[in-house]
Amino acid sequence: MAMKKFINDPDALVGELLEGYALAYPDKIRLTEAGLVVRAAPKAEGKVAMVTLGGSGHEPALSGFVGEGMLDVSVPGDIFAAPGAPACLEALRLADRGAGVLFVVLNHAGDVMAGNMTMQMVEKEGLNVRQILTHEDIAGGPRSEPENRRGLVGCIPLMKIAGAACEAGRSLDEVLAVAEAYERNMATLAVALTSATHPATGEAMFELADDEMEIGMGQHGEAGTGRMPLKSADETAEAMLDQLLGDLAIEKGERILVLLNGAGATTLMELFIVYRRVHEVCAARGIEIARGRVGEFLTVQEMAGFQMHVARVTDDMVDLFDAPCDTPFLTVR
Amino acid sequence: MAMKKFINDPDALVGELLEGYALAYPDKIRLTEAGLVVRAAPKAEGKVAMVTLGGSGHEPALSGFVGEGMLDVSVPGDIFAAPGAPACLEALRLADRGAGVLFVVLNHAGDVMAGNMTMQMVEKEGLNVRQILTHEDIAGGPRSEPENRRGLVGCIPLMKIAGAACEAGRSLDEVLAVAEAYERNMATLAVALTSATHPATGEAMFELADDEMEIGMGQHGEAGTGRMPLKSADETAEAMLDQLLGDLAIEKGERILVLLNGAGATTLMELFIVYRRVHEVCAARGIEIARGRVGEFLTVQEMAGFQMHVARVTDDMVDLFDAPCDTPFLTVR
Repeated sequence: MAMKKFINDPDALVGELLEGYALAYPDKIRLTEAGLVVRAAPKAEGKVAMVTLGGSGHEPALSGFVGEGMLDVSVPGDIFAAPGAPACLEALRLADRGAGVLFVVLNHAGDVMAGNMTMQMVEKEGLNVRQILTHEDIAGGPRSEPENRRGLVGCIPLMKIAGAACEAGRSLDEVLAVAEAYERNMATLAVALTSATHPATGEAMFELADDEMEIGMGQHGEAGTGRMPLKSADETAEAMLDQLLGDLAIEKGERILVLLNGAGATTLMELFIVYRRVHEVCAARGIEIARGRVGEFLTVQEMAGFQMHVARVTDDMVDLFDAPCDTPFLTVR
Repeated sequence: MAMKKFINDPDALVGELLEGYALAYPDKIRLTEAGLVVRAAPKAEGKVAMVTLGGSGHEPALSGFVGEGMLDVSVPGDIFAAPGAPACLEALRLADRGAGVLFVVLNHAGDVMAGNMTMQMVEKEGLNVRQILTHEDIAGGPRSEPENRRGLVGCIPLMKIAGAACEAGRSLDEVLAVAEAYERNMATLAVALTSATHPATGEAMFELADDEMEIGMGQHGEAGTGRMPLKSADETAEAMLDQLLGDLAIEKGERILVLLNGAGATTLMELFIVYRRVHEVCAARGIEIARGRVGEFLTVQEMAGFQMHVARVTDDMVDLFDAPCDTPFLTVR
């Protein structure tokens, strides 16, 4: 069976997709010779910069969010694979405008290894860089063992908030502080209905029966907390939200941000239906949704499923979330 | 086999999805009691308004584009079905700020019938409304028979341009003129790789063999110009672009807008790879891509495929395309 994707040579995927992306958005981003995605117009001197790294195949994440108010440089890896530390070091050098750099790394083995190697090189070179690791997948283990929690879509609102703090002229310590506060107060859970095809190998990433779903599925098909018969949108929303609110110990009167991230094939129609129930449950419990967003931010090819992300937010975080940004895949006026 | 979608009662789909949408974006849009999607903050008096109608199941189209700089009111129908004329009349009354309303209707039998019935009621009532029909699917028939060409994703850039013209204070005649000029100079072609599941019936919308693709597929699975063995991204891009440029008789030195619209399951990764080849072919032919956009604007559930949209643009159209807008699914700063 042929792989039903619009690709050419599977070995040239990442180079071609980055080239196409840069050709489509020359007003906003640019691809360097080393394959880094940078802003078309670099940030002004004296402001803290923000850099991330991550495997390709999850578009628009992460390079889709390079631009004013969010990332300065993104270091794309191969399909579902971290880039090398030398490319990350190059990105941090490029990004630094004299006020230091926040380096956002999602908790996945390869990304963490690349991040740590990069930080060793950073120290040798004396660059002013602070690393933040995002670990939020509550299916990975209890809150007391963050090392077992994978980084999921929570990096996107985190980078929105931290990016606005950079733009506002806050110091690297202040930017790191708000990013860490958001990180400590976020939780995400994923659900999958169907697998996706690995675009380089053409193989299914996992198998799910026709009447099954899996809550806790990782974004590369890592096993979750268990398979179960397919549930309705409302039942799925309730089960996931309950676990997330429980993990964060959100109580009546608190304010949260909710983000529903489509995995690829799941429609906005479905995500809106799920969001409706999330809102109803929160309203019934006296929890205020300060901001809600629904869309595709970090995908897993054509997988059907979504990630539900919840974070306890302060007024400052909401203001930073609302601040203007201008990237190819997220713009706020 | 169970339908693998996150829904509750298939008969309550549209009500629930609209409710969820309105709950997620209360800062930008609001749902009226009659089920119309309107701006959270109505447009100032004295400016021309814009209204559209269309079946649901294609999210974010069309109601995702209600907001400053684009639509004033959207009239959502049931899944893949036009709304009734009375709802459209109500929308036109609501939208009118004293300077008249542009009424955008896509060329599909049900939509056209609803549009025409609405225009009869408009005349009786003496409202100042001008209708524009979008027909651009070059698989439907030759340019000389526009009635056979379906309305596809071209309505989105058309509404971006016309919406900016409304916001700029142009008269209804002027807004209609720029919309009609864009409409006459646009062409779209769709390709499908896999079918989608109708979310109300649970049935596949059409069948395609494992090694087949179909160019010209309509957005409800209407047959195209023929099935063929699966091609590479580059071959697909070349074949489609060639037909589109030929239809529009685009010559060396001309400027075009290119928009690639994912059908649902097709990834941004693939669309970027296709866009890369589009750009290469245009560059080789001396055709300038004034603006390019890649994303999901008008989907067909979880169908794999995309629409390639090309339009010959003037400087005025590019300026209007670049003008600020603020809707839940398209924001320009």
